[in-house]
Amino acid sequence: MKAARLHDYHQDLVIEEVPEPEITDPFDVIVRIGAAGLCRTDLHIKQGEFEQEHKDAGLALPYTPGHENAGWVEAVGSGVKHLQPGDAVILHPFVSCGVCHGCRAGMDMRCENATFPGLYTDGGFAEKIKTGARAALKLAPNLTPADVAPMACGGITAYHAVKRASPLLLPGTTVAVIGAGGLGHVGIQCLAAMTPAEIIVIDANPAALELATSLGATHTVLADGGQVEAVKSLTGGHGADVVIDFVAERGTERWGVDLLRSFGSYFIVGYGGVLEEETKRIINNEISFIGNLIGNFNELGELLALMAQGKVTLHTSLYGLDDINSAMSDLDGGRLRGRGIIVPAGARASA
Amino acid sequence: MKAARLHDYHQDLVIEEVPEPEITDPFDVIVRIGAAGLCRTDLHIKQGEFEQEHKDAGLALPYTPGHENAGWVEAVGSGVKHLQPGDAVILHPFVSCGVCHGCRAGMDMRCENATFPGLYTDGGFAEKIKTGARAALKLAPNLTPADVAPMACGGITAYHAVKRASPLLLPGTTVAVIGAGGLGHVGIQCLAAMTPAEIIVIDANPAALELATSLGATHTVLADGGQVEAVKSLTGGHGADVVIDFVAERGTERWGVDLLRSFGSYFIVGYGGVLEEETKRIINNEISFIGNLIGNFNELGELLALMAQGKVTLHTSLYGLDDINSAMSDLDGGRLRGRGIIVPAGARASA
Amino acid sequence: MKAARLHDYHQDLVIEEVPEPEITDPFDVIVRIGAAGLCRTDLHIKQGEFEQEHKDAGLALPYTPGHENAGWVEAVGSGVKHLQPGDAVILHPFVSCGVCHGCRAGMDMRCENATFPGLYTDGGFAEKIKTGARAALKLAPNLTPADVAPMACGGITAYHAVKRASPLLLPGTTVAVIGAGGLGHVGIQCLAAMTPAEIIVIDANPAALELATSLGATHTVLADGGQVEAVKSLTGGHGADVVIDFVAERGTERWGVDLLRSFGSYFIVGYGGVLEEETKRIINNEISFIGNLIGNFNELGELLALMAQGKVTLHTSLYGLDDINSAMSDLDGGRLRGRGIIVPAGARASA
Amino acid sequence: MKAARLHDYHQDLVIEEVPEPEITDPFDVIVRIGAAGLCRTDLHIKQGEFEQEHKDAGLALPYTPGHENAGWVEAVGSGVKHLQPGDAVILHPFVSCGVCHGCRAGMDMRCENATFPGLYTDGGFAEKIKTGARAALKLAPNLTPADVAPMACGGITAYHAVKRASPLLLPGTTVAVIGAGGLGHVGIQCLAAMTPAEIIVIDANPAALELATSLGATHTVLADGGQVEAVKSLTGGHGADVVIDFVAERGTERWGVDLLRSFGSYFIVGYGGVLEEETKRIINNEISFIGNLIGNFNELGELLALMAQGKVTLHTSLYGLDDINSAMSDLDGGRLRGRGIIVPAGARASA
Repeated sequence: MKAARLHDYHQDLVIEEVPEPEITDPFDVIVRIGAAGLCRTDLHIKQGEFEQEHKDAGLALPYTPGHENAGWVEAVGSGVKHLQPGDAVILHPFVSCGVCHGCRAGMDMRCENATFPGLYTDGGFAEKIKTGARAALKLAPNLTPADVAPMACGGITAYHAVKRASPLLLPGTTVAVIGAGGLGHVGIQCLAAMTPAEIIVIDANPAALELATSLGATHTVLADGGQVEAVKSLTGGHGADVVIDFVAERGTERWGVDLLRSFGSYFIVGYGGVLEEETKRIINNEISFIGNLIGNFNELGELLALMAQGKVTLHTSLYGLDDINSAMSDLDGGRLRGRGIIVPAGARASA
Repeated sequence: MKAARLHDYHQDLVIEEVPEPEITDPFDVIVRIGAAGLCRTDLHIKQGEFEQEHKDAGLALPYTPGHENAGWVEAVGSGVKHLQPGDAVILHPFVSCGVCHGCRAGMDMRCENATFPGLYTDGGFAEKIKTGARAALKLAPNLTPADVAPMACGGITAYHAVKRASPLLLPGTTVAVIGAGGLGHVGIQCLAAMTPAEIIVIDANPAALELATSLGATHTVLADGGQVEAVKSLTGGHGADVVIDFVAERGTERWGVDLLRSFGSYFIVGYGGVLEEETKRIINNEISFIGNLIGNFNELGELLALMAQGKVTLHTSLYGLDDINSAMSDLDGGRLRGRGIIVPAGARASA
Repeated sequence: MKAARLHDYHQDLVIEEVPEPEITDPFDVIVRIGAAGLCRTDLHIKQGEFEQEHKDAGLALPYTPGHENAGWVEAVGSGVKHLQPGDAVILHPFVSCGVCHGCRAGMDMRCENATFPGLYTDGGFAEKIKTGARAALKLAPNLTPADVAPMACGGITAYHAVKRASPLLLPGTTVAVIGAGGLGHVGIQCLAAMTPAEIIVIDANPAALELATSLGATHTVLADGGQVEAVKSLTGGHGADVVIDFVAERGTERWGVDLLRSFGSYFIVGYGGVLEEETKRIINNEISFIGNLIGNFNELGELLALMAQGKVTLHTSLYGLDDINSAMSDLDGGRLRGRGIIVPAGARASA
Repeated sequence: MKAARLHDYHQDLVIEEVPEPEITDPFDVIVRIGAAGLCRTDLHIKQGEFEQEHKDAGLALPYTPGHENAGWVEAVGSGVKHLQPGDAVILHPFVSCGVCHGCRAGMDMRCENATFPGLYTDGGFAEKIKTGARAALKLAPNLTPADVAPMACGGITAYHAVKRASPLLLPGTTVAVIGAGGLGHVGIQCLAAMTPAEIIVIDANPAALELATSLGATHTVLADGGQVEAVKSLTGGHGADVVIDFVAERGTERWGVDLLRSFGSYFIVGYGGVLEEETKRIINNEISFIGNLIGNFNELGELLALMAQGKVTLHTSLYGLDDINSAMSDLDGGRLRGRGIIVPAGARASA
């Protein structure tokens, strides 16, 4: 089959023929890719930022990236009873074991034996992928793989943070959202669908703020240096009850805390920066900082339910698998509108 | 001042002159009534169903009913610093002490020293009422007493139940609402504003179902004997994750449980019937039955925030204080559309 | 192998040779029984009270009861990686699928595809049992199958209810425990280990109350008709914050509610009686009734952690597999002290 | 009356005669001091570290410090019905208003109108103090002011953090406690009384570790540079599920995070240091950092319930009010054993 493979860090992916994946374990599942989301992490991988992690995981180049995958079940192992060839599915990024303490608690991300295709084993920038029985979630009839693929990682991460924040977001409260990009624009829709809070969206890009307004933001604020004052002003001088930081680098992790009212909670979703705060301020304002990592399998199902009901949608730009390097270049250069998805040649016809 | 007083059970209220209430305690507040909601409990009171409770509370007739009150602050005691004459306010039905364990936990309904004007002391079917500093909630500038009065008891009760149910109402879940009347129609709007759940509304009255649809119900079901089958059919045979029973009498408390899926929760808001269930069924399906009593002061504020944002509205029919017996007769005879509110003669002008 | 089989309802079990269970699915696990707890449900089964459930489940007699099992892994299917022959294990009573919504939420009892060996397939009154990979929990080195078997169902049920009640049991609160028998005596130990609440234990049997005191009860009350008054007196006239009813039949489900203070929660664990309560009382006191069904796999692990730490212990009476009918007769006649466990001939030697 | 007053920063307190406080508001309460806890914050105040806060609060020297107070009610304002002269009470450090959003939520620390006697108004290093009706909690008959005074601020702070951590501390989990001093030794006792978690206590002082063991620590670890490795070793290489950092300065806020397992929670109670963490690590391990500020009034009651039940005790050293500068010197020099309490001359006799 055809796959886009990373042979060397800092080099373009190579489109080449590789052997098809095969069932070797009773819980294996082979999925024909319908669409694979292109994520900023794929750029980081190409740029060598995961070299150490790859070594730690025992991964040797070349390999196939792509960790936001959806498609159709092609074959299942002998232990798989709930999936059938032909089922349209989206793939949770973790292939979890189902028997460790984390899995038993419903916390797939805490699986002690998980693999992560696209990061540490072959992923979905290919015609087929091998995953596990516990990773595949069947799609509602009104959704196709191309509609949903980026939800597999980026979308679920935004949903997970919103869900954890929602008990704090009673009527009359305010949530400040930093970043209305790939994750943020999903998060805003989830907030609007799941909470009665007023939503203030802060972004440096006016176009992103326009999108935010169309998706349910109550107020938007340009991150031009006056954003803290603007948010204070919109919240009676108090600040927001909750901040969700979808960026957490390039300074947001510093001024973001100033958006928060006393006894508020700061949800960290993005990464890259360093959180630096006096413990005296943390105590005196009884602030919580809450890290967020992807989300659980059922949370992926909950997000897909919102999509099936039309409450959350994605804007995407399609690229063929052969064009993946153009897609990555467009993403890197800020020319990619919406979320990029990679669609193998035959996939569109069969959808 | 003028007041509508109950002199004898089973008799019409008497409109008469009574002395104005006076400040006698540092935390007293006198409020000029802008509107007082008419509640089915007022009929029960007239019909003598609270005779024993009145005796237990040391209340001797005549007295003034009316427990859903809103208006303008007229005078405050020497210990009251947060209210000023002229403030537009809605009155939480409990005048709570602020120092007992329940009050300290934020649970006003658990106040061990509360009074309940309109039930056990003079209420709001009058030109003025005496209440306490902790009962008065200032209105947002875009709301008037006549907009909000019935929220003081009926509305907050619906909101309280919805708020407690909402952690169970994730995307993809279903809530069945029994009764789309005074409380139910507020509850439906709260559910739509606060949760992503599908809302199935069941009522015996087709007009109530039409209203429910306009307020956000996903599906409506006529309670004509086939309602259990209909709800099962709408939920893939499973039943609803949550049932909120705003009636809980005349049989709903029996068939209502059949609407519930395994591991579901049944919120009881109305009353009158008898819950009767085999413990074996309760165990095998791990069902919870959850009673609900009015709500806390901050919950009243949360509900009013939804109103100020336009997410919850009330339909009301206005009657003058002199016409209160007509209003009660209309309510009893099913001729009152929306929630009845009683407005003293001068109040409308000053609103 | 040898097994104790039910050939006809109302007849003694027959000890006979049957074929050994075999691995037929990649997730199957064969366990050599070290001990199987004898539960009152086994008497109910013998007495024909599960005849309808057996028919519904497609179970035809003869079959082997026994649903509280522990032992050593004998063989595992090709998909099982976390268990090895020789591992000492306790078996969660549900063989869950691991891929349905309930399993993915960590709620094994909500598995839509579970089997229940001992109730609806062959159980543990035998030398070996077939179970599934997700049912087997490895024991800490200081615990043996004979120490723990009854925890597999009775113990975990008590723990599950206590865990759910514990957020309500802050310092200064009181929990009333109805029944200090098989489940109750585990529940009392869990309450003492996990909460700072005062524990009032009510039982009709003075010996059970003595045991309760030795296990951590703060007060004991004989259920002689004066128990409601006694509990009120011990709680300043208010009643208990939480009631856990391990009986829920023979009247406890009626007077048990009178033990509860306003805004209290009633946990139903036992079954047999009918809960009957006016909705007006449920509302006015904002009472919750909470059903409890066994518990999750991780909860079994949590309970076993308490055992490994010496915070919870079991008193048991051992019977050989050949003596199972004597054991059942002793249980039925009230002659069995502690929890009965059935131990096959070879098991003791190998423990 | 006699009071110990701060006339200048960096100078000893001056013992002098000052006018007695008087009732000026209906909710005022005058309390005769039975004991006042000496807190490290009192040293910070003397050393000028609160000069800015004092200015911001409009406090001009001289004034009377002392914010951990207990004694007997001397007089009450006209609005106070639940307290009587002679009542033995402990004083929550915040004099809260009872009508703002925070107070109504039961969150006294979020009161928008609170005063803080001892920090920003005259405190308890005196014979009498003026406080408010909502600050005074009646003592159980078996407790005296001298038994409990330091619980008013230090104790409640430890309890508050433990209570918030306790839902995470199921059987089989581990909590690492940094610091077994004034707050820590209360926290350890609360953990032992309220949770089944294994408690690892880390401190640089071997005597503190001995005390920790006697109070319920499962393991103790000397903070000698090898503490991270030691805790990892005690937790199977994973780290603790929860860390409670009662120090949060002098480096604990740096190595403390290394004690935490993935998906763990870090409770910050002490202050002084700077939290500095890569957002990538916060995300990848889904860590929460949770600030803690004193606690609510009902939490003070819960802690006092543990004391009345003998589950939590305090070790104290008594000093007369005239000896307060010696006490402060002893505290500063590390010569004060247990928690110092200041007892005015007449108080002991009347206790």
